[in-house]
Amino acid sequence: MKRIAVLTSGGDAPGMNAAVRAVVRKAIHEGMEVYGINRGYAGMVDGDIFPLDFDSVSNTISRGGTFLYSARYPEFAQLEGQLAGIEQLKKNGIEGVVVVGGDGSYHGAMRLTEHGFPAVGLPGTIDNDIVGTDYTIGFDTAVTTVVDALDKINDTSLSHNRTFVVEVMGRNAGDIALWSGIASGAEYVIAPEFDFSFDEIAKDIEARYKKGYKNAVIVLAEGVMGGNEFAEELKKHGNVGDLRVSILGHIQRGGSPTVRDRVLASRMGVRAVELLKEGIGGVAVGIHNEELVETPILGDGNALFSLDGDKIVVNNPHKADKKLLDVAYDLEH
Amino acid sequence: MKRIAVLTSGGDAPGMNAAVRAVVRKAIHEGMEVYGINRGYAGMVDGDIFPLDFDSVSNTISRGGTFLYSARYPEFAQLEGQLAGIEQLKKNGIEGVVVVGGDGSYHGAMRLTEHGFPAVGLPGTIDNDIVGTDYTIGFDTAVTTVVDALDKINDTSLSHNRTFVVEVMGRNAGDIALWSGIASGAEYVIAPEFDFSFDEIAKDIEARYKKGYKNAVIVLAEGVMGGNEFAEELKKHGNVGDLRVSILGHIQRGGSPTVRDRVLASRMGVRAVELLKEGIGGVAVGIHNEELVETPILGDGNALFSLDGDKIVVNNPHKADKKLLDVAYDLEH
Amino acid sequence: MKRIAVLTSGGDAPGMNAAVRAVVRKAIHEGMEVYGINRGYAGMVDGDIFPLDFDSVSNTISRGGTFLYSARYPEFAQLEGQLAGIEQLKKNGIEGVVVVGGDGSYHGAMRLTEHGFPAVGLPGTIDNDIVGTDYTIGFDTAVTTVVDALDKINDTSLSHNRTFVVEVMGRNAGDIALWSGIASGAEYVIAPEFDFSFDEIAKDIEARYKKGYKNAVIVLAEGVMGGNEFAEELKKHGNVGDLRVSILGHIQRGGSPTVRDRVLASRMGVRAVELLKEGIGGVAVGIHNEELVETPILGDGNALFSLDGDKIVVNNPHKADKKLLDVAYDLEH
Amino acid sequence: MKRIAVLTSGGDAPGMNAAVRAVVRKAIHEGMEVYGINRGYAGMVDGDIFPLDFDSVSNTISRGGTFLYSARYPEFAQLEGQLAGIEQLKKNGIEGVVVVGGDGSYHGAMRLTEHGFPAVGLPGTIDNDIVGTDYTIGFDTAVTTVVDALDKINDTSLSHNRTFVVEVMGRNAGDIALWSGIASGAEYVIAPEFDFSFDEIAKDIEARYKKGYKNAVIVLAEGVMGGNEFAEELKKHGNVGDLRVSILGHIQRGGSPTVRDRVLASRMGVRAVELLKEGIGGVAVGIHNEELVETPILGDGNALFSLDGDKIVVNNPHKADKKLLDVAYDLEH
Repeated sequence: MKRIAVLTSGGDAPGMNAAVRAVVRKAIHEGMEVYGINRGYAGMVDGDIFPLDFDSVSNTISRGGTFLYSARYPEFAQLEGQLAGIEQLKKNGIEGVVVVGGDGSYHGAMRLTEHGFPAVGLPGTIDNDIVGTDYTIGFDTAVTTVVDALDKINDTSLSHNRTFVVEVMGRNAGDIALWSGIASGAEYVIAPEFDFSFDEIAKDIEARYKKGYKNAVIVLAEGVMGGNEFAEELKKHGNVGDLRVSILGHIQRGGSPTVRDRVLASRMGVRAVELLKEGIGGVAVGIHNEELVETPILGDGNALFSLDGDKIVVNNPHKADKKLLDVAYDLEH
Repeated sequence: MKRIAVLTSGGDAPGMNAAVRAVVRKAIHEGMEVYGINRGYAGMVDGDIFPLDFDSVSNTISRGGTFLYSARYPEFAQLEGQLAGIEQLKKNGIEGVVVVGGDGSYHGAMRLTEHGFPAVGLPGTIDNDIVGTDYTIGFDTAVTTVVDALDKINDTSLSHNRTFVVEVMGRNAGDIALWSGIASGAEYVIAPEFDFSFDEIAKDIEARYKKGYKNAVIVLAEGVMGGNEFAEELKKHGNVGDLRVSILGHIQRGGSPTVRDRVLASRMGVRAVELLKEGIGGVAVGIHNEELVETPILGDGNALFSLDGDKIVVNNPHKADKKLLDVAYDLEH
Repeated sequence: MKRIAVLTSGGDAPGMNAAVRAVVRKAIHEGMEVYGINRGYAGMVDGDIFPLDFDSVSNTISRGGTFLYSARYPEFAQLEGQLAGIEQLKKNGIEGVVVVGGDGSYHGAMRLTEHGFPAVGLPGTIDNDIVGTDYTIGFDTAVTTVVDALDKINDTSLSHNRTFVVEVMGRNAGDIALWSGIASGAEYVIAPEFDFSFDEIAKDIEARYKKGYKNAVIVLAEGVMGGNEFAEELKKHGNVGDLRVSILGHIQRGGSPTVRDRVLASRMGVRAVELLKEGIGGVAVGIHNEELVETPILGDGNALFSLDGDKIVVNNPHKADKKLLDVAYDLEH
Repeated sequence: MKRIAVLTSGGDAPGMNAAVRAVVRKAIHEGMEVYGINRGYAGMVDGDIFPLDFDSVSNTISRGGTFLYSARYPEFAQLEGQLAGIEQLKKNGIEGVVVVGGDGSYHGAMRLTEHGFPAVGLPGTIDNDIVGTDYTIGFDTAVTTVVDALDKINDTSLSHNRTFVVEVMGRNAGDIALWSGIASGAEYVIAPEFDFSFDEIAKDIEARYKKGYKNAVIVLAEGVMGGNEFAEELKKHGNVGDLRVSILGHIQRGGSPTVRDRVLASRMGVRAVELLKEGIGGVAVGIHNEELVETPILGDGNALFSLDGDKIVVNNPHKADKKLLDVAYDLEH
């Protein structure tokens, strides 16, 4: 393969730039040319494609966001969109593509590969909800941002003897809530994967204050429900003190990537190029037990997607780590 | 004066611990004894009062929040509350008080002084909305937290070509919005002190995108209106792109104080003790033109409060700095 | 086991407080009493031992250093010291001990266990040089501090077109150098585990500047040699531009622990208590392939120490990850 | 004036990019064209000059270093160098110049103005040692970096009961040492402007440890002497415990500028353009008592330089603030 391209797609995640940088640098190291595609699949179809050199990624490893821009582009789920994209790739002499993004982005990579254009996926999403990898690029940074916010909220919560509900990101996956809950010493962690009872929590908070504790913090994954809704319901079940809600929102996507995310993105970017060099596509790079691994994007239960009985593509679910919930519980109760 | 006390009151602010530390250390240095009062005026009335020594404030200068806890306690506006507080002070042999807090806290300090207990106020509030000082303790840290968030939001805003409305604290004062707007390079700053037009902003954003700009950020002080309300109204006036709202909320109160806030709090704490040592109360310490100054809590227009025609105590308004708005405008347009 | 104790020993590492906190909280959760020992084995022998409760570790998870203090105490390698320590443990009714520290600390834990006092080791050291665990408590924070410094040095290196040698910690292990080198995009990483040639590096730097590159950064593990010595030698081998040396030093040990270190320390602290509860000692807790594991402190090549032919206790060496060096090389050359 | 240029010169300082950004944006706002000059006066003489537009400074406000590069260029002190520089300016149609830098950079600005090219100086240096301004661009960030390091060193100093000498930047000015000393709660601050006694300090440290204190930190400005030299001498005067030295070095120049530095740089950049627009040169912009001011570069004692009896240009000395030293002393003793 003489020329490859790289794009970022879906919600932006810190470390995407580090991944793109690694793809560019490794490709050049291997004697290949490398192009960037702006705005994900939208830019591919528009032909917003341009060459990148060694210097064009200098000083990007520490930067949040993605300098290739990102966009959601549902049209790429259709054959028409895919063929339009491939036409642009061909026009630019591109033979393989690295896609950095989440679930939706991987779907596109799978289709490109089916059409004869090997595409490799890298898991760039803060949610850590991708099958086939222990960690996604951006997760460590997002949790770090959340814990920094929780440390600050602890200051004010404790100073004022207040109960806080803090809503964090995580639509299907509680990983951000679990990790940040443990790391901040939050009293309760509510994640979509695990049951909880308003009644038990409210009673427990009441008991805490009676024993003389000064505050309580509940970390809530957005996938369960909104923070305000949660607080309203909680109040009905007991006297939970001076209750406040904080919704962390968009700050969770930005910021300079942590060391972990930079190293992970660098390693994965290198591997993606090695795979394309061997003509391999239709796989996603992951890290499992500290080693880089490849998973077929479409396949059996360990793949990202499977075909159900009606030959419909379905997502295989990410499994959150119950052990972490137990740690959180043991340390606060 | 042989024994003084210190309390924190109102919304907590980073640097309150540094101020308390300075009061304690300076009092000891001057040969006085010093007591802490928990939970502001509430603790004073409850007698939640205890001795502090040199070591009890070690390693507090870098900590957010207030280890003396804080509380709002409207009952102290009444004579009955004040007398109950004074009784507790007398019982503990306390002859003067340093109060770290905002407007409401100063009111109590004024009353204590009128009743023969000299009390000195230090401006501990993130809003920078206190007459008689160029800067309040906590303001620099709060703006730093806001700018850190805005830098992160810029990453994602730019990556996705989005328009963001970011609601920041500041009920009556636009200082947080103004400083953070300039420091983050936000395109628009909306503060309670200055007029604005939805129509102009919407048209300007439309024009920006047509010229090829990739994103736009509006920093909005909460005193103007809520972020969601602002966004709804803005949309009616033009095509402002993919519009998102972020409400920074409680994180703005916490965190390790900045150098500025630590130094300011340390200097002010020293001065408060010097004043009490001379038997002076009923004044607030401020910084003006880089020098520490004292302002009467009750007095003419330069004081924190004045009596109106009906002898009612009224707040004298803080004046925001129009020059900063002009800088923000010139650099982004 | 009804009562256990916890101590920190050797060089301090961020996350030691989080580990102690987890031991305390988990022990209480399991119905045990828990004591703290100040200044490591020195405090054990002195009887500087005191009870800890749930609240005594509140708000410690985010703090650097160790509130139990640490000290090196070579006397504990002798039988006399060990017996004196055990007498103090018995006097306080303590039946098991958790030791947070590095190699030397583990040696003491092994001896305690041999004398009938089960002791469990947790790897608290920034160097990541402990056999039996993929990561030590404090490593992620130290690398984060180093990368923060390297990001700053990149600013000034690039602004002035300079070559920098940055000396980082790591006496026997190049992990800090390797991770921080990749994460900061340093051009060269010199670690004790891998060969290098002054001549090759000097020639390569010369070539870089000729091609128009603006700066170069060399990350050097202290175990190889000192930064100044390295720079002097390098200069003899070529024109390496305006060369500066920065020795990061003691800042690498401090700071609020990262999310990773907090979670790792929390998990390991929980496990240490579970082991003691079952009467198990003489092992070190580690994390391997994302799962907590236990390794005998003394045993075969996979243990921390082995007996050599003369029955002398020898350290089994930590193995650095050559794959990371390859990544660093591929991305910068 | 229709076209102006901007350069950065001398040691780099955080906020230089924010100043350049403000010059560019304000110039465009005022209908002028603006050029950048790479590598300070060296680039001026080489003709390394190129146009800048609104977008070329996007996303630079948060970045450390200077994207225009900086260099020391003593040749510009000679007439020949100055005339060569002016020739290049004329060739590019440039009518005025903004110079961001320290003392040496101002000298060049003065000469350019004398030769008919109005040049305005902005104080870009971390040392805060420039006459005519209360604060320089970069000082707040540098102190923030130093305090962050001191907070970390406090962790380890306290954990191990050690005495630390921490050498910080400041060749002629103790401002970094003074501010960081207060803000970190250091026990001793040694600055070039103030006398000190090794004997007093050593005796005081001895006394502290005897009273049971756990550690001591000495912040030393490099202008007094080197950290190792200081430590050697100190040891001769008393038992100062387990003494360590940390030299913070180059990290003090880098990093994302603080809010203060960004706002200061933005305001000063705007003012520089306003001055050039009116044809005014030969002055330096400063901030005094919260207001922007201009000071003649060459003039009487309030100017940056004066002519001595032999008509030789001499620097007028920056005066450090004795009040701050008193605060530091009162709070720690």
